[in-house]
Amino acid sequence: AAGRVTLVGGGPGPEELLTVAARAALADADVILYDRLAPHERLAELAPGATLVDVGKRPYHHPVGQDRINELIIRYARGGASVVRLKGGDPYVFGRGGEEVDACRAAGIEVRVVPGVSSAIAVPGAAGIPVTQRGVSRSFTVVSGHEPLSDEDFDALVRVGGTLVIMMGVANLHQLGAGLVRAGLEPDTPAAVIERGLRPGQRTTVGTIGSLPGEAARIGVRSPAVIIVGEVVRSHADLAPLLITAGLGPA
Amino acid sequence: AAGRVTLVGGGPGPEELLTVAARAALADADVILYDRLAPHERLAELAPGATLVDVGKRPYHHPVGQDRINELIIRYARGGASVVRLKGGDPYVFGRGGEEVDACRAAGIEVRVVPGVSSAIAVPGAAGIPVTQRGVSRSFTVVSGHEPLSDEDFDALVRVGGTLVIMMGVANLHQLGAGLVRAGLEPDTPAAVIERGLRPGQRTTVGTIGSLPGEAARIGVRSPAVIIVGEVVRSHADLAPLLITAGLGPA
Repeated sequence: AAGRVTLVGGGPGPEELLTVAARAALADADVILYDRLAPHERLAELAPGATLVDVGKRPYHHPVGQDRINELIIRYARGGASVVRLKGGDPYVFGRGGEEVDACRAAGIEVRVVPGVSSAIAVPGAAGIPVTQRGVSRSFTVVSGHEPLSDEDFDALVRVGGTLVIMMGVANLHQLGAGLVRAGLEPDTPAAVIERGLRPGQRTTVGTIGSLPGEAARIGVRSPAVIIVGEVVRSHADLAPLLITAGLGPA
Repeated sequence: AAGRVTLVGGGPGPEELLTVAARAALADADVILYDRLAPHERLAELAPGATLVDVGKRPYHHPVGQDRINELIIRYARGGASVVRLKGGDPYVFGRGGEEVDACRAAGIEVRVVPGVSSAIAVPGAAGIPVTQRGVSRSFTVVSGHEPLSDEDFDALVRVGGTLVIMMGVANLHQLGAGLVRAGLEPDTPAAVIERGLRPGQRTTVGTIGSLPGEAARIGVRSPAVIIVGEVVRSHADLAPLLITAGLGPA
């Protein structure tokens, strides 16, 4: 019999931010393909019957390419397995979930998607920063900062005027800050960077879009981190890290 | 002893999309304030020890205002209760979670926030539409369509060029479509509206930003619904409703 594939959003890190559906999918899996962005420390307990396959990119190790991941997913499913592809956050937010769904469909394999808590929203929230706030921001834009943005991009992002959430942007923080100011964003616009959000060692650095890149470089801010820009950052409430201090985080 | 307050993101609807932390918070609650956007059908089972308080707005019923909700939260907490404010989606995405956190802090009440699966991402996903897709869209903007947008807003949103997700916009769909086209969006840009996402009766209507408002009016599209605009809509895969067909949805 043909197997089936479930893409599971694993959320921003703590096991307690897995959904009930995610937990059920893990418990039922024959094979789990995971990477370091997904909560994976306790997979052996959460999925006692599953073969665990690490397909993550790691420093100094050759990464497993997306084509190869798609091949593995399909090969295991064709072998009759119930396959889980476990991802960090939500599978459809910079998670290449769409490509994996397309690959399964092209191969005639049944696929479903379990959405997850997205780091783009939850990580600012864990620092006490709401992505929307009545009277302050009625929209938020989530953008990848992994590749450089053009001046046209910066111009549009500034004009939207809502909250800006930049994922995977730490290495380009100077370029991002300079681009936004060049496009007309006031240099004293509040901005923050949250490292290791909702994980042990969460650290929030708050400043302005003018000052944050220099400050982040000075103190050695590193990925994984979420950058958030906009008036909502004034709400920064030192609530963080809520889940971890409440004992709900990973051991 | 003073009580404490937990804002809980209840996700887009199905009980299985509650997080483990949300389930734990409900199970431990003395009082739960909920509204119709939150998953509430089985609260008596999920929170057997809690007093359940409906603060939702309903047609033909006088809504409970936000000030009154804040008052209730604080009053119960001051009485020593473990109070849960259960919300649909994530508390910080158009959920007025920030206002409730501010009210608790101003009153000296301990408050924490459990993030949830956001409908803005999960509902398009349940229709097989990824908010980001490599080579197609590297950003998404989530905006409230409840109040009219200005031509300046439309202009900026079109220039950003990524995926546009409009919440609470069904009543203004004609104005939204016309505004986007007036701002330069090609009328044949794919667009979809997903009603009752991840709930029984989920329905997806796919068209273009030029055709969708008329089609939606013709077939009687109603809120709650999520509107999504952009090239990612071409991925629409008829995957929906994944969770419900898998038997993971509400009974």
